[in-house]
This record gives sequence, structure tokens and C-alpha cells, in this order.
Amino acid sequence: MLLEEIRDELKRKGIRLSRRNVERILRALMVSGDFWEVVDISESTVPMASEVVKELLRRNLLFKDDSENLRFTEEGKDLLKELNLVGFERISCPACQGRGIPFYWDLDLYREFLEFARRRPEPVRDYDQGSVTPETTVSRVLFLKDRGDLEGKEILVMGAEDDLTGLAVALTRLPKRVLILDIDERLIKLDNEAFKELGIDNAEAMVFDLREPFPKEWLRSFDVFITDPPETYSAFKAFVGRGIASLKGEGSAGYFGLTLRDSSLFRWRDFQKSLIEDFGVVITDIVKNFNDYQNWGYHQETKASQIAPVKKGPKGIWYRSYWYRVEVLEEGKGFNERISDEVFYLDEEGSTT
Amino acid sequence: MLLEEIRDELKRKGIRLSRRNVERILRALMVSGDFWEVVDISESTVPMASEVVKELLRRNLLFKDDSENLRFTEEGKDLLKELNLVGFERISCPACQGRGIPFYWDLDLYREFLEFARRRPEPVRDYDQGSVTPETTVSRVLFLKDRGDLEGKEILVMGAEDDLTGLAVALTRLPKRVLILDIDERLIKLDNEAFKELGIDNAEAMVFDLREPFPKEWLRSFDVFITDPPETYSAFKAFVGRGIASLKGEGSAGYFGLTLRDSSLFRWRDFQKSLIEDFGVVITDIVKNFNDYQNWGYHQETKASQIAPVKKGPKGIWYRSYWYRVEVLEEGKGFNERISDEVFYLDEEGSTT
Repeated sequence: MLLEEIRDELKRKGIRLSRRNVERILRALMVSGDFWEVVDISESTVPMASEVVKELLRRNLLFKDDSENLRFTEEGKDLLKELNLVGFERISCPACQGRGIPFYWDLDLYREFLEFARRRPEPVRDYDQGSVTPETTVSRVLFLKDRGDLEGKEILVMGAEDDLTGLAVALTRLPKRVLILDIDERLIKLDNEAFKELGIDNAEAMVFDLREPFPKEWLRSFDVFITDPPETYSAFKAFVGRGIASLKGEGSAGYFGLTLRDSSLFRWRDFQKSLIEDFGVVITDIVKNFNDYQNWGYHQETKASQIAPVKKGPKGIWYRSYWYRVEVLEEGKGFNERISDEVFYLDEEGSTT
Repeated sequence: MLLEEIRDELKRKGIRLSRRNVERILRALMVSGDFWEVVDISESTVPMASEVVKELLRRNLLFKDDSENLRFTEEGKDLLKELNLVGFERISCPACQGRGIPFYWDLDLYREFLEFARRRPEPVRDYDQGSVTPETTVSRVLFLKDRGDLEGKEILVMGAEDDLTGLAVALTRLPKRVLILDIDERLIKLDNEAFKELGIDNAEAMVFDLREPFPKEWLRSFDVFITDPPETYSAFKAFVGRGIASLKGEGSAGYFGLTLRDSSLFRWRDFQKSLIEDFGVVITDIVKNFNDYQNWGYHQETKASQIAPVKKGPKGIWYRSYWYRVEVLEEGKGFNERISDEVFYLDEEGSTT
């Protein structure tokens, strides 16, 4: 009954989770004592994993050793036996890192991208930045290509330029047009300089705040949008809704990442409901851990770091997101209103911004 | 305007498609003259691809050569230039065949499965059979393992035993219990003989017609279900709805395949709406072409073969499906009524049964 007890304890604190989430965290703790790795393996939000671990510590089932590793006490070990749990084993293809899309498909593109990625400025907390690995960015572009969303297409890349996704798309020289919007002018400058250097004249980057509505000339004008929204409901609505409003219509496609680090599956259901009912699109792909995020410099300042049961930061990659593709059927119903700042970034499940 | 003209022509015939579907078929025809490969590359339903190809033949943009290969006429080639289309290039990881899950992770399991798969009887048209490759079946099992849905779980495998999925699940010896239901007693016999030979005593196979409601003892009793529904709305509802009715509740998971060969994205949206609204689950994964189907013996008898613009059958694998995983949040709302035969298998988009 322990799983249910802990679940109910957390529910009282306002955290949405199922019995299964507690089980996953226990199974992750059986193979790793590193808190951030446990979050990753168990696919939990940070508040969820933190509170479950704190509860296990409080109940003397877990203890922290001298190097802040989480270990089961004898009592904890007995419990695992009683529950008949075994440690999590992650299985994913080593060649493509589980994406199904091999980043090494086009090594020229990969190498050229790496050269420009070196110029990338440090991530800034104000903009909720934290970039994905170069392998992720290149795989995103190849994913578009495989789905027929690259060659000859007009592509809008919105607020995902800390990952240089728009730059990588443009480097292929295959789209008809690329428009890149981001709030960080350092990235916009980097992009435009690259395009100038390389003589790429159908790609353009502009400073834009996605809380603002789009001007009329961007509406119903693109075949594809790509974005990486912060995961509050209003940010999701702003980013994805504007994306859909920018699409030409039937057969147009949208791409974005969604995590289980800053959102629970409960919120995913809200997002999915909104996609299908409000926006009128169909979901064609959801690929686990397609996006690997490198550790960002401001980790110690985040809510995640403050609520974690350990002081030490992550050693390796622990923050990943799923990759969604949606397609417009008859007519996309977008959203193009102004969004207020208030609930834009942080809420009860989010913690990494 | 040709894409729109052809789309409208097909719409008048009652086929749901977008301008984009026509574009995909043209782009597939640029890299293959084999009709079945074109269906595969363009991700079309068979009626959709057939009618588009027939329309292109009628308009003298395409012709059939002596070996029934589809080729563009000079007029057709001019059109492609005018539309600025380039041939489709498929990109997927050669190691895991694009699944992200490597079937070669556990070669002992793979080899043991192959041994039993050799005993599999010929597929039967009456049961809409046509089995996936052994690599697919083994990857399904590893997918479950990666998601924490295998060890210690009670697993129901419904009407997917032409793929021997239940057998492969049981061969891992990791679940707590496996119950396999299928209408084909030859497969049930094969399974039960295998379990006896191997001394696997927590797995059982039973003849069952999924049009019938489940007995009470199967309801709210499983952690995981796996199925491969025929893709009419009522079959979907019967298979997936019963699956969800059989699950214990929060955190339980369901797996099934959905194609774009027998369903359009329009129908996918109906399915997704039903999953989220009627069944109250969240979709956690949708993996492109996870399931590769071997050619089945009765191809010449299918509607697909009759409506195709060519007489020759498929050379290689052309029928694939996406792999869905759904998870129950609070309470799954299943469906356990009797289903009539009438619209069970065939409808306007389906053609391969």
C-alpha cells in the first residue's frame, strides 16, 4: 500500500501523479543514486520526483550517502522485495540514440552545423534557454526531410533558436524560405551573419516576442512551423496556436517538443485535447526523448535546483523532451491573441526555467 | 492547380484527402515505379493512391511500361518541374529500422522467438491476418520493457497472435501473468504447446472472439494490453475499448498499431478524439512504421489488389503501421458491448483485409 500512501501524500500537496509514478521512481532509484538521473529514468516532473524522494527519506526507506547519492536502507530493500520491483532498464538504439532518425545520415550538414554552433552565446535564464545537443538539432532537420516537410517548403521557426534549429534548416539549402523568430538578438545576429557569409538569401532571422500577435503577412503563409514552447498552458497556446495560425492550411505541419520534466501526463492530456479540439489538427508522431538538452549554466538558480532533495547538480544529460508532429486536416484553427506575462513560464509542474 | 484538381476529383468519389496527399504520391512516383512501394513511401491509403494514379494515367501524365512500372510521360515531367517537386528520400536508422528500439538488444530472445515463429500456420483472410516481421514482434516486447510495462505485470494480448506477440512477451519470463486471446485456434494451440514445452506456467492462450463482451473476471484486471485492431471505427472501439476496460486503472498502459494504409489521417483524428474524450487516456507514443508486415498469401483476393492500377503484387514490405502507446490517468473508461459483424472489417478507406 506504500505506493498509494505516497501518492496520496503528494496529491495533498497539489502534485498530480499516479501510483505508477511512485513505482517508476522506486525502480529508477534501484539503478541510480543520482537524483537527476532518477528524474530522467523515471520520466517524472522535478517536483514529483523531489517530493517522492523526500517522502522516502522521511520514512527511512532511503538515505543520502556522503557524496549525496540516494541509497536504500535495509528497510527500503525489504520493501522492494515485498513489492517485487526490479530496476529499470532503458533500451534504445545506440546508433540513432533512440530517435529512429540517424543524425549521421548527412555528415556534411552535421559538420557545417557544428562549426556555426561553436559561435552560440551562453544560454540566458530570462528567455528559458537551454539548448539541445547538435545531434538533436540535426535529427530534427532530417525528421522534416523524411516527412516531406523540407524541400521547397516555407518554414517558420519560432522561439527555438537557442537550439539553432532555424539555422540548421537553412543550412540544407532545401526549403523555399525560412523565417526565424526569437527574442534573443544575439542568436538573430548569429543567424543573419551566417546567412550572409554563406550566401543563403532565402532565410531571414528577426527579433520577435512571441507573446505578441503575429502581423497579418505571417498568417496562413507557411507550410511548416517548428517551436519549443515553455510548458504552461498559456505558453503552449501562444507558441503552438500562433504556429498553426501561420500555416497555409490542409497538409501543413507543425513540430514541437513536450517534456515530462516540466509537465505531467495529466497536462499532456490537456495539451492533446487542445490540439485536437481547439486547433483541429491530428497528431502524427510522438517520439520519446528525441530532444536531449545540454546542461545549462544557470541550473543553480532554477526552482528545480531549489526543490531538489540533493544539492549537487546534474552530471550528464537528464532533461529530454518528446518530439511531436501535428498535421492540419481541413483548416487549422490557430490562436493569435496577446498573451500576458503572468503565467507564461512558471507553474506548479514546471521548475527548470 | 493540378494538385487541387485531382484532390477535388477524388473528393467527389468520396475519398478523404488533402492537396498534400496528392503531392506525396507524385513525390513517391519520382523515386519508384512500383505501385505498392509508392503507397508505402507516400503514406497513402490504397484507394487514395489508386485513384490518384488512375487520374494521372487518365491525364496522360503517367504511363505503365511493359513490366507494369509507373513512369512519367514528358508532359508529366514538365509538370513536376513546374511544381518544383523533388523525389521523396526516406531517412531512418538502419540499425533499428527506424523504431528507436533495437530488436538485437536481446539476441537470445530473438533466436528463441524465431524457433517458434517457424511453426506459425499460414495467414487466413477470414481473420484479417498478415503477420509482422519477427524483428517487429521482438521490438514490441523490448518497447514494453523500456517503458516499464513488462516486469511483474499482468498483460493481456488480444487478437494480435498472428504476430505471436503474446508468445514473445511470455518468452521473456518477466511478466507476472500473460493472457492471450485470439479467434484462430491454430495459434492458441501453438502458444499453449510452447508454454508446456518450456514450462512457462504463468501464460495461457484462449480462443476468443473479440466481438463478444469480456467476462467479468477480465475487467479491471490487467496492467497492460496489446492489440492490433482492424481499422474501422467499430473494430477500433471493440479492440481498444475492451483493452481499456480490462485495465486496472491509473498508470495502466495500452499498445496498438494504426496504419495509414487502411485509414487516412482524417480517421486518425477520430480515433485520437475517441481515445482522449471517450476513453480518457493520454497518448504517450506514436512511432512511425514501427510495425512491418510481411506479405500475406491472400493478397490477390483483397480489395486492395482489385482496385490497384496494376496487376502485379508487392515485391517487398509495403504495409506498415505506427505504434501507439496510451496510458490511463485517473480511471479508464472502456467499452464492453457486443459488436455487430456488419461494418467490422471493411469500409471505404480499408482495403487489405
